[in-house]
Order: sequence, then structure tokens, then C-alpha cells
Amino acid sequence: MKNVKIGLIGFGTIGAGVVKILTENAEVIQQRLGASPCIGKIADLDITTERGVRVESGVLTTNVDEVLDDPEIEIVIELIGGYEPARSFVLKAIQNGKHVVTANKALLAKHGEEIFSAADEKGLGIGFEAAVGGAIPIIRSIREAFAANRFSAIEGIVNGTANYILSKMSDEKCDFQTALQEAQEKGYAEADPTFDIEGVDSAHKIAILTRLAYGAPISLEEITVEGITSITPEDIECAGEFGYRIKLLAISKYDGQAIDVRVHPAMIPVGHPMASVNGVLNAIRVCDDLMEENILVGHGAGSLPTGSAVVGDVMEIVRNSLVGAGTRVPAQSFQKTAPIPLKNMDEIESEYFLRFRVKDVPGVLAKISGILGNHSISIESMIQRGRDDNGKGVPLVMMVHRSNEKNVQDALIEIDRLDVVCGKSNLIRVEN
Amino acid sequence: MKNVKIGLIGFGTIGAGVVKILTENAEVIQQRLGASPCIGKIADLDITTERGVRVESGVLTTNVDEVLDDPEIEIVIELIGGYEPARSFVLKAIQNGKHVVTANKALLAKHGEEIFSAADEKGLGIGFEAAVGGAIPIIRSIREAFAANRFSAIEGIVNGTANYILSKMSDEKCDFQTALQEAQEKGYAEADPTFDIEGVDSAHKIAILTRLAYGAPISLEEITVEGITSITPEDIECAGEFGYRIKLLAISKYDGQAIDVRVHPAMIPVGHPMASVNGVLNAIRVCDDLMEENILVGHGAGSLPTGSAVVGDVMEIVRNSLVGAGTRVPAQSFQKTAPIPLKNMDEIESEYFLRFRVKDVPGVLAKISGILGNHSISIESMIQRGRDDNGKGVPLVMMVHRSNEKNVQDALIEIDRLDVVCGKSNLIRVEN
Repeated sequence: MKNVKIGLIGFGTIGAGVVKILTENAEVIQQRLGASPCIGKIADLDITTERGVRVESGVLTTNVDEVLDDPEIEIVIELIGGYEPARSFVLKAIQNGKHVVTANKALLAKHGEEIFSAADEKGLGIGFEAAVGGAIPIIRSIREAFAANRFSAIEGIVNGTANYILSKMSDEKCDFQTALQEAQEKGYAEADPTFDIEGVDSAHKIAILTRLAYGAPISLEEITVEGITSITPEDIECAGEFGYRIKLLAISKYDGQAIDVRVHPAMIPVGHPMASVNGVLNAIRVCDDLMEENILVGHGAGSLPTGSAVVGDVMEIVRNSLVGAGTRVPAQSFQKTAPIPLKNMDEIESEYFLRFRVKDVPGVLAKISGILGNHSISIESMIQRGRDDNGKGVPLVMMVHRSNEKNVQDALIEIDRLDVVCGKSNLIRVEN
Repeated sequence: MKNVKIGLIGFGTIGAGVVKILTENAEVIQQRLGASPCIGKIADLDITTERGVRVESGVLTTNVDEVLDDPEIEIVIELIGGYEPARSFVLKAIQNGKHVVTANKALLAKHGEEIFSAADEKGLGIGFEAAVGGAIPIIRSIREAFAANRFSAIEGIVNGTANYILSKMSDEKCDFQTALQEAQEKGYAEADPTFDIEGVDSAHKIAILTRLAYGAPISLEEITVEGITSITPEDIECAGEFGYRIKLLAISKYDGQAIDVRVHPAMIPVGHPMASVNGVLNAIRVCDDLMEENILVGHGAGSLPTGSAVVGDVMEIVRNSLVGAGTRVPAQSFQKTAPIPLKNMDEIESEYFLRFRVKDVPGVLAKISGILGNHSISIESMIQRGRDDNGKGVPLVMMVHRSNEKNVQDALIEIDRLDVVCGKSNLIRVEN
């Protein structure tokens, strides 16, 4: 049975998972693959910390070139994350004729064009199933299972940290800070959680999916990104009363003319399968002209789920290699990519959930609904609760019919200037 | 750009969908594939009925050998369904060196061993993504995305007709016959719905998934199959009160020793994503040692969803062919299959929902709970409703803690002999 030597750069949580899988599941891997992928070298700055997996002596090195320049290594797995030096390592691996597997969404979102082109030019495989949705087979599904389909929308709960926090706030009626702190204690959130809670990580992932789905390169700066830090327990409670759950969604829609790509909290009807995707689970919904919708749900992070996607990609590359093929499927799904115009956020239309904090005095609703009406926004339903006992105002929430984003934003600015309104109003878009 | 000629056997609903996709989505297919798959011949007994898609003259034939013996045809798509003559056609196509794509679950469930071996021996591709779950990429995911994983369970809502009927009964509180009739009127159920409502179609599909997941051939006769015809509106209502939805599940579990494979109605907690999979949607849940669970949801039937899976398989074969490979992945996921013992249904353990119809007299509960206790079955909760106005008895339903199947079956036989029990009792297993 053929041995295939693998080099691993980055021996953190996922790296240790990959080594564990290649060791402990070696038998089933061989039974399916007819070959034996094994770790040849592991490069990391820290080669002394115990990772809980057995590694043969001489395998660990602090010198990444021992991986990149080793002629016996056919596949390089990059798991250090971030833009640099990951970019340089991946490009050098390709330059040296090695296939690459990476879980690095930031890298592919920012430098995808350069990396995919380099791999395609050399006829080398680049596997990145682990970069979006962890164990969820979304990359493979878009590139292969749905290869004949014209996509109209990709929507995903693609950040487990944010989903854990929102689920916690929803189930336990706690506030954002409490939920974040518990996520950090449980290891679901980093010490610096900015990328997760501000939606940046989700933006990386939707940029990658946009490229694959429509064949369009997209730059990160063009994506409208709103995080979950302004979501309150009241929002979640009112959403529930209106029949919705709040999720951080990464959205990419294409109407054949322009792409509408954004990341923000959104209200999903409770009866929809994605509304029940809670905790650290991820879910990605794909819509197209043929199959209407397909939803994939699974663990989007973690050592073994993400490791399983990495090893699946390694096995795909070995399978190609065994039949003498470098690569079968273009890295970006299309033979060639071509820019597609982006829709301006001002142009989108949606139903909205609006939350105001208002003084508990007569005539408030008349003033607010008057301004909404002037901006062609019509109210579908409304809840006003409690009395103002502490002078901080009372919450007033409403659902409004399908409206234009700019109209809603303009109306909110105007409403926030009213003397009966205390503090900044908030909106949450509805995705049906 | 290379043209790849395809022969189609069976020009029904899905066949017409495939032709429509290859025609209308030709541009995106070429942009992704770098080749152009096109229909060379279509064989069907009926070549006069209008299918709503344009076919060039000379393409249609009633003589299947014009497809099977055409040297220009590289890929044969079999869409006639059933065991024979589908089996002979597929084997002859392979004999003649043609790759095969099929949506025929009955054929692969019964003759999989013969067909997969024939394809593997000739080094030809056999695509059957459309055979299970329509547009849901479950075959590809098990064979490729989760290739390193040791599966412990596959559970699926894999029959859209049964799911439509149960959803209808649940949403509209109607009985089985009314829901079935509406399914037939809407075209979701055949004139003879036996295979769908009795669970046979689901058994075909779980047999295929069992083979792929564990590398074990399995004969259809070994699968315990119960349909949905005995589910009543009362069952559904009580399930709701206990916090569950009733779904027809195809289940295949493997504990490393034996496989437990069965098809029956099951209660799923309302908060689980699969409980919200309603109407004609299908869902398949995969559990393993690495990623915990992965759930795929989508349309399991219909012209375009199923057609999209067929064309996806065609594109995969063309991609292999373009790099000079016949096939990369073993048809059955494993290089070799080997039998695994099956668990006897008597041995399984589950929580159960039990429904009795009893006389409205004192002492009934004591008698029933006494028998359950004697069989080591302990009651978790109970609902008894209404008074006996028409002498037909009143429903008594209960949830019981984890128990052995044989104990429960024996207890029900004994309970049904009680003079206070009117009619046959029913059980529904709980899947958490």
C-alpha cells in the first residue's frame, strides 16, 4: 500500500486533531483509500507543549522549510491561520509542487485569487473544506454536487461563537456580556473575540462561498458587516413573541445582475430548520434554480470536526494522485472567475424588526409612525411593554413590511432626533 | 471544448428534468466543467408524449440498444426505476464500457453488490447521488467529505410522500386517508403509494447508506420495516404535548459489533432541526466519531432536484474522464465490503410512546401499569383524555423510559388481552 507523506504547519488544536485522526482512524482510512497518508514533518514555533497525541521522534521542527523543502512531502497542511506568514508558506508549498490543504478562511478570503491561481497553474490540488463550516461539506457540495446549478442565495450561520452567545441569550434570557463570558470560559470564544462577535470571521467565509457560487472574486472591504454586540435580551424576547429567532447570518444573494453580500444579525421564523440550529452548531443554506433549497448543519469548529474536513481533503488529493491526476475540479469552482457588480446596501429590501426606547408619554407612537410613513414604511405589528419606572424609557418594538434599507436608515436617524426617544434605535433584518 | 455524449434510458419526469438542465444550464455547466455534456440518444417505450423539453430529431428511440450499443455514448443515465429490466440495461452498459448514472434505489438496494462490482472491475464510474435524498449530497458526503470518519449512525427522513402526509396530519389535524388523498392530488404520492407509506422505499435507501457507511452489504429482507398507516391524529397530538414530532425514519446504527437497521415512525424532539423538516423535504443525519453529527436537508424528489443530482454525477464522471481517470472513489466507499452481523430487533433499546384505547372504568391504569412493571418497563409520563361517550373507549397514552424492545412487544400482547382494552395498542419509538 502506497504511503503518502504529509507536512503539517501549525500544531495547535486542529493540527493535533489531524494527527489524532490520521493515527487512530488509520485502518478505516486505508480501507477506503487503498493508500496510507502519514505525517512526515510538523513545523511549529512551539514543539515542546504536550498535545495529547503521539508523534514520532524527528517529526517535529521549528523550521518551516524542513516541511516546505522536503522532497518526500507531497501534501502540505497549513493550520497557522491569519494572513502572513501563512500566505508565504502556502505559496512556497505550491511553488515547490506540493498540494495544499488549509483551514485558513482569512487567508483565502483575502488572498484567494493569488493562491487559487497559483495552484491551478501548477495543476495542484488545494483543499479548503475546513475553512468554512468545519465539518459541513459545503465547499465540496457547491463545487461538485450542485455543479450544474445556478445559485441565487447562500445564507449561513457560520460562526459558532456568535451562535453560542445568541442561543445562550435566547435560552437563558441573559445579556450579551454574560453569554460572552461563559463562551470564553467554555473555550468557545477567544480571549479577544472581536473577529467572531463583530462578524469579521463570517465575512471571510461568505467571501469564499460567494467566489465559489457565482465565480466572482470579491474583496472583503465591499462586504457590509454588523456584529451581534448590540443585540439585547429584549430584542430576543420580542423576536420570540413575533415568532422569530435571532441568528448572525452571512448572506450572499445573486439576482443575475448584482450580488448582495452582507453579514448581520437576522430574524428567522421559528419553524424554519435553521432556527433550531443552536449552540456552536453551524448551518448553511444554498438556494438555486433547480433544488430550491438545501441546508447543511454541523459543527463549524473544534479539533476533530475541523480535522475531519482536513483529512477528507487530504484523502481527495491522494485519490486524485493515485489515478495520476493533479486536480479535477477548478479551485474556484469555475474555470475562470469574472467580477460581478455588488449591490449597494442602500438598495436592498427587507422586512425589519425595529426597537426604540421611548419616553412613557402620550403621542410617542404617532410621532414615530408618522416618520416611518413619510419614508414609505408601513407597520405590520407592534409591542409596547411596561411602564417607565426609572426614567430610562420603555421599549417599543415593531415589525414593518418589506421596505427599502435606505428609507429605514433615514427614518431611524430622524426618529432618534425626537425628544421622546431615549438612546439609539436598533434594526434587525428579517430573512424568510 | 470537448463534447461528451450521454445516453438516457427512461424519459419520465426526472429524465425530462435532466434534459432541461443540460439544455438550459449549458452555459454554467461549461463554465465550470470546461466540457460540454450533451444528450446523444434517449430510449423510452413512449416517444410521442410531449415532455415540455426540446429534443433534436433522431435522438428519441424505443430501442434501448441504440443507447447501449452506441460507441459514441460515454455515459448512460438509467431512469426507468425498478429491478428489471433496469438491472440488465445497467449491466450491459457497464459491459459495453460506459459509465453509468442512476437514480434507482430499488435496483442498488437489491443488486448493488453485482452492479458496483461490475463497475469497479471495469474501472468505470457509477453515480447514484440521486438514488437517496434527491438533491441532498449524502452519497458524495459519506464517500468523500467524511471519508476518514467511523460512522455510528445514519438516520433519515428519506421519503417525501410519507413526510408530506405526516406533516399534513400534524399541521391540519386530519387523518391518514385525508392526507394521503391530498398528497395524491398534488402529485406527491403515486396512485399505488404502497412503497412510500409502508416504508419500503425508505428501506431501499437505508440499505444503500448502510453499505456506504460501514462497508457492509445488507439484504433488504433483513431490515425491520414499519410504515405510517397506523399513525392516528391522536398519536400526533399527544406527541406534540410530550414535545415531539412524528417522522418516518430510516435508521442504521453501528456500535462496532453489530448493525441495527430499521424503518419505522419515530418521535423526534421538537427542538431538533430534523423535527422542522416538513412537507416533501428530506433530511439525513450522519453521526460519527469525529464530527458528532451532520444534518443535510433538501428536496428528496422531483424533476429538477433529482435531475440536478443526476447532472452533478454526470459532471463528476466527465471531470474524471478529462484527467484520464475512470473512477477515483470506490463505488461502495470501501475498497472491499465485508458482512457485519445484524442486531436482532428484539435486542434494541429505546424510549417508547405507547397508545392504548381503554374502557372508561376504574382500575384500568393499575392493570396496564402492572403488566408494564412486570416487563421492567417504567412509565415516565401519561395522558388520559376525555370521557367515553360512544362506547369505543378512550385513548390512554404514555411515554416510558428506556426499555428493551422485546419486553415492550410482550407487554403489549399481554395488555391487548385485557378485557378493559379495546382494540390493538400501538407503539412509537423515540429517537433523541
